[in-house]
Amino acid sequence: MTAPRFEVDPWSLSTGAFDAQSLAHEESVFGLSNGHIGWRGNLDEGDPRGVAGSYLNGVFEEHPMPYAEDGYGYPDSGQSVINVPNGQIIRLLVNDEAFDVRHGTVDDHVRRLDFRHGTLNRSLTWTTPTGSAVEIRSTRLVSFAHRSIAAVRYSVRALDEPAEITVLSEVLANEPLPTEHADPRVRETLAQPLVGLASEVSGTAATMVHRTRESGLTVATGMDHVICDDGSPDGPSASIQTHAEGDVARSTIRASLRAGETLEFVKFVGHEWSARASDTTLQEQVAHAVADAVQEGWEAILDSQRRRLSDFWSSADVLIDGEPRLQQAVRFALFQVFQASVRLEMRSVPGKALTGSGYEGHTFWDFEAFVLPVLNSAMPHAAEQALRWRHSTLAHARDRAKLLRLDGASFAWRTIDGRESSGYWPASTAAFHINADIAAAIVQYVRTTGDTAFERECGVEMLMETARFWLSLGRRDAQGVFHIDGVTGPDEYSAIMNDNVYTNLMAQMNLRAAVAAARTHPDVARTLGIASEELADWEAAAAAVHVPYDAEREVHPQAAGYTDLERWDFAATHPEQYSLHSHFPYFDLYRKQVVKQADLVLALFFAHEAFTPEAKDRAFAYYEALTVRDSSLSAAAQAVIAAEVGHLELAYDYLAEVATLDLDDLHGNTHEGVHLAALAGVWTALVCGFGGLRDSASGPILRPRLPARLSRVRFGVRLHGSVIDLDIAPTEATYRVRSGPPLRIRHFDESVLLESGREIRLAIPAAPEPAAPPEQPRGRAPIPASRAFGEH
Amino acid sequence: MTAPRFEVDPWSLSTGAFDAQSLAHEESVFGLSNGHIGWRGNLDEGDPRGVAGSYLNGVFEEHPMPYAEDGYGYPDSGQSVINVPNGQIIRLLVNDEAFDVRHGTVDDHVRRLDFRHGTLNRSLTWTTPTGSAVEIRSTRLVSFAHRSIAAVRYSVRALDEPAEITVLSEVLANEPLPTEHADPRVRETLAQPLVGLASEVSGTAATMVHRTRESGLTVATGMDHVICDDGSPDGPSASIQTHAEGDVARSTIRASLRAGETLEFVKFVGHEWSARASDTTLQEQVAHAVADAVQEGWEAILDSQRRRLSDFWSSADVLIDGEPRLQQAVRFALFQVFQASVRLEMRSVPGKALTGSGYEGHTFWDFEAFVLPVLNSAMPHAAEQALRWRHSTLAHARDRAKLLRLDGASFAWRTIDGRESSGYWPASTAAFHINADIAAAIVQYVRTTGDTAFERECGVEMLMETARFWLSLGRRDAQGVFHIDGVTGPDEYSAIMNDNVYTNLMAQMNLRAAVAAARTHPDVARTLGIASEELADWEAAAAAVHVPYDAEREVHPQAAGYTDLERWDFAATHPEQYSLHSHFPYFDLYRKQVVKQADLVLALFFAHEAFTPEAKDRAFAYYEALTVRDSSLSAAAQAVIAAEVGHLELAYDYLAEVATLDLDDLHGNTHEGVHLAALAGVWTALVCGFGGLRDSASGPILRPRLPARLSRVRFGVRLHGSVIDLDIAPTEATYRVRSGPPLRIRHFDESVLLESGREIRLAIPAAPEPAAPPEQPRGRAPIPASRAFGEH
Repeated sequence: MTAPRFEVDPWSLSTGAFDAQSLAHEESVFGLSNGHIGWRGNLDEGDPRGVAGSYLNGVFEEHPMPYAEDGYGYPDSGQSVINVPNGQIIRLLVNDEAFDVRHGTVDDHVRRLDFRHGTLNRSLTWTTPTGSAVEIRSTRLVSFAHRSIAAVRYSVRALDEPAEITVLSEVLANEPLPTEHADPRVRETLAQPLVGLASEVSGTAATMVHRTRESGLTVATGMDHVICDDGSPDGPSASIQTHAEGDVARSTIRASLRAGETLEFVKFVGHEWSARASDTTLQEQVAHAVADAVQEGWEAILDSQRRRLSDFWSSADVLIDGEPRLQQAVRFALFQVFQASVRLEMRSVPGKALTGSGYEGHTFWDFEAFVLPVLNSAMPHAAEQALRWRHSTLAHARDRAKLLRLDGASFAWRTIDGRESSGYWPASTAAFHINADIAAAIVQYVRTTGDTAFERECGVEMLMETARFWLSLGRRDAQGVFHIDGVTGPDEYSAIMNDNVYTNLMAQMNLRAAVAAARTHPDVARTLGIASEELADWEAAAAAVHVPYDAEREVHPQAAGYTDLERWDFAATHPEQYSLHSHFPYFDLYRKQVVKQADLVLALFFAHEAFTPEAKDRAFAYYEALTVRDSSLSAAAQAVIAAEVGHLELAYDYLAEVATLDLDDLHGNTHEGVHLAALAGVWTALVCGFGGLRDSASGPILRPRLPARLSRVRFGVRLHGSVIDLDIAPTEATYRVRSGPPLRIRHFDESVLLESGREIRLAIPAAPEPAAPPEQPRGRAPIPASRAFGEH
Repeated sequence: MTAPRFEVDPWSLSTGAFDAQSLAHEESVFGLSNGHIGWRGNLDEGDPRGVAGSYLNGVFEEHPMPYAEDGYGYPDSGQSVINVPNGQIIRLLVNDEAFDVRHGTVDDHVRRLDFRHGTLNRSLTWTTPTGSAVEIRSTRLVSFAHRSIAAVRYSVRALDEPAEITVLSEVLANEPLPTEHADPRVRETLAQPLVGLASEVSGTAATMVHRTRESGLTVATGMDHVICDDGSPDGPSASIQTHAEGDVARSTIRASLRAGETLEFVKFVGHEWSARASDTTLQEQVAHAVADAVQEGWEAILDSQRRRLSDFWSSADVLIDGEPRLQQAVRFALFQVFQASVRLEMRSVPGKALTGSGYEGHTFWDFEAFVLPVLNSAMPHAAEQALRWRHSTLAHARDRAKLLRLDGASFAWRTIDGRESSGYWPASTAAFHINADIAAAIVQYVRTTGDTAFERECGVEMLMETARFWLSLGRRDAQGVFHIDGVTGPDEYSAIMNDNVYTNLMAQMNLRAAVAAARTHPDVARTLGIASEELADWEAAAAAVHVPYDAEREVHPQAAGYTDLERWDFAATHPEQYSLHSHFPYFDLYRKQVVKQADLVLALFFAHEAFTPEAKDRAFAYYEALTVRDSSLSAAAQAVIAAEVGHLELAYDYLAEVATLDLDDLHGNTHEGVHLAALAGVWTALVCGFGGLRDSASGPILRPRLPARLSRVRFGVRLHGSVIDLDIAPTEATYRVRSGPPLRIRHFDESVLLESGREIRLAIPAAPEPAAPPEQPRGRAPIPASRAFGEH
């Protein structure tokens, strides 16, 4: 086991001494967000920094999409997240010497992300090169209660001798993004994306308004400062002066401190944006938001922060006995999911949430497929908002389908505002499964929450358009069998094949869900113009969907003919040749059996009713030998199916991998932002893996079973409108309805009615004698959990 | 029939009145070249123009290759042909009024491309807006004898009244290319690609030297003018003054003409380039070349032009009785092949030859596959030069194979200097058949010419490297069958499939040819390090090559599983939706049965020994129904196989299509340059289609048979070191050895020994009762020859 980068603590993440090497990584994991604003965990003083990052969900710039050889249907323009004006910066001068962790002497430097307070705390003492020592503390938050507000409480105390303190607290626009795009058109567009429209100072407060050059989005930023009175009659007096011009708004705070005295202030920063509101409206909005926050005050805001989190943890926490690092990692993961989504309003969550500019800030299918199930259970309102955002992109999705000469709607593979922004069609346009992933998310959301209003206003229409889409994408053969040809499944080391099992089964579900939704809401269906013949067509197509099976090898091929392909030569592949797509051409990956991320194995999970237990056993073993996990989206699904087919220790190793992926930077790219879908996968591996939860229209099944290193796992989960508490021990599981109506579940093969206020304790059947765990490609087995989490 | 754009004449192509709409088209078909220099048929005065074009074979600029999403093995930089300094320009001022066909009055404007003189002639009378009338004539040539020389004889005669004549005759550098690339990096690179290094005037002569910014090629241009004395004692006296600076060299010629007097002069232009020679060396070279040409004089150069062409026609002409427009088109096609290749020196010929900047001036597989057979027969020296150029790119091809993790060498899909310049891998990198196409060209060249020196110096090595390549690209299955997975065949509406029949059969031929060449030259093989086990491996792999067959439909699939794919819905496709790739996404084209260009049908031709006559019949009918001919590379192959399987009138329609493709601008893009491979296909359709020629190691077969509209076709063809004359009439064919040793051929099923000086007249067996001709996709049948060539 390598030394954990962070102190082991169940409710926080903290690091000590400053380390330039891990700065960018820490900025991502210490990032704060509320789903609207995202502030990376940059140091208050701005420098040194890995990657400066201040984002607003939905704010992007458009840029041309370059192609060496153009083709029909290729998007002309792409979208990239940009930095909105950075309100984090608080530069400190002590006796005219600028505080910088690289100069003078820094002692007791601690940064701590607090999962219960929703703050990033920092403390240190700094001795200037000339010997003046000060103690610095800051507490930063992005408010869960005030959607457009972030704030920092900052203090500096003179230790042994007086100190002249100057603080330059700023909002700074047009900070560059870290990555240089090869295409200068993209580079130019993204270098200075914001055009200043207005800047205004009112007393100590300042506001600035900018507009993005190409995408035409208006961004307003405000700030104000409040000096904290230390209560003593002759405490230090501080002055504030505020200026704003061009790309900078700056408040200068000055104070003369005697030894032992403290200058303390709160910086309130407001962030708003709009594609429609006028610049003056937006400027007023942000000024009001800041003024309200000042009025409410730091303590009240901090308090509401605590309360929101307390509510979240009381419903969403997963308690782990026996593995302290896992407990911490689970809380970190859930905290990330929470803060990425808590104040979503008609937006989705990007792949990296708002913690970095990786993947250009795009949202992908993995939000609906991997993150949404957690939100359904823990934050149904956020799930609703994200799905309503997808619904709001229907016009783009219809246009896209039309452009592709298909019916209905085809949602964007990668996007910020709903328009397709992908530049390599075999792994984007052809990955049509995203439409069924969205449909599945709708079904799950409605089933979990019973939100009929959403279903009527958005759900039926989206299911109808995606069903129409599948009917036009697929075809009937002479025998009437329904095929979907030439598509790409979740595995990106395979492309443009026929009858991808995952895609076909998900499309089948989509067609059936459209029929069911239209039947449930005949008036809505009528309004939408769904004819009964259309329903019959969808139903018939769903019934006719082809699911290829390799009878000779007794295994489901990932797609038709897949198991006949040559196997990748893993023995000849060196460890440093992973990720394979960085070392081998696509043509060679595509023509061979090698799996980047769970595809057929994901079908075993998402379409669990379509496979017998024996088929799952064999398929899992078969694909384990081919799966290299060059994607962070793989391990959680592998954990779930490994647990189901009885390889509990392997499942636990996969859980350890997703749990430590960002904390230990396993992919070496967490500096670009956290892997939100993988973090959500920690919950999935626990709840669906060791909890054994599978849900369907006919009710949930749970088959809880723990790996050896865990003595107890407890969580609550929302199912069919109720919240069920599950307490799993090695030999028994205890069920309880926490809220909502009674619910009939299956515990293994036993049907059980759960009722409010009654605990039901059920034995866990002895696990079957575990077969030898399947082998992974050479060198691609997961790190054993004992190494990832440490021996104990 | 639409009115032919050009006068019907067996030995020339001419147009009358100026038509702005067809200017760019005429510039391509009136382009002059010698394989080193290419001058588009721009008007002498430079304006108006469609597309200014002056090219040197091998001169290009490098530019970055843009990708929306980058991938392993994608080329970083691309290559584009650029305009070298334009020496065509002769601006005429009459009484200070600039001659422009759009001003004043133009009468009797005729431009005429002469296939026997190798000149572009022009004549007209121009009346200035103020009423002065002059007669203007120009004769332009690009010299076949002097590789670096082009020349224009230009005259202006005052008709009814005296005229002050000023001529500004120029060389002009950095004229922009017509197409604006979307990527500004490419645009910038190509906008002003030439940096001036030197310009010098010596008497009336000028030279300029430039270097390309990125590719570092040095380009030298020279010019001089000679006034033609009209012999009369008091004829007009003319002055010449020459200047050169920056991007312009200009000679100003002045004369005062009395009514009836003529100013006549010759402009000599020299073009040289080098990647290595110093600028001064190159400048001297071009100055000498121009001085030599001046010394030799216009008449002598014109005379050698005639002699070269006379030699060419006496060996390469195809005589057609019964169809004057076809006769003209055949001569035009052969003239284009001739002038594109006559002075090749270690270069290939671009897809558009040197007549336009289409395809960025790249050379593709179609040179080796379609043009080289004509050169083998008519211009073996040019064939040798092109193949030696391919050999010179072996280092790049080895690097490319290595980058792709393959053995041996993989030649560039599109390139100018041998480095891969393609930007869409499914239709380039994956189109590995180019390697076998090159191998086949080597085999054909050596078989046709007996050039053992080439075989020893280049052939064995290229066959070895491509054989090694195929062995590493393919794989043996459990039964030992050799498969080639995940490749793209000639048809670009299909991609990345397994066991493409064309590719597999051509790879088989390549492997066998490598074995044969190594056995023929064991010393060379030893020097190259070919072990006997390696030969055994190639032989075994060739024997094990899989050729898929659809037993149910009794037809060869284009690739494994192809015939099971959905058929394109041709009934639902509107005529204006062709070319399909401009109106439908690749994913949809790729997953369906729709053929852009002959693929399996090309295999029936190139690998003719691998198919029974019945298999050819069925395959031709099957693929006719799928082939839309969105590529100009298709019709000739379809003509050849249509003739073989007995559809002579359909074959003739396809011949008419390739014959009129550029003349009638059937694809609407001849302004980008002529389609050289299609032009070569005119010869192929005649010689291999109606001549029925197929060659192989065991000797040629001829199955001549004419369509109804042709009463006689005569041509000579080089075969196994001899030139055979074939005279085809409707019921009999006459054979004669024109030069070389006796040759045993097969005439249909009869084995015949042809000997020098002895004509053999053989009956043509009655054609079998022709089946109903197969149908093409709706609206994609070729234009009937009766319409293309006119009723008569």
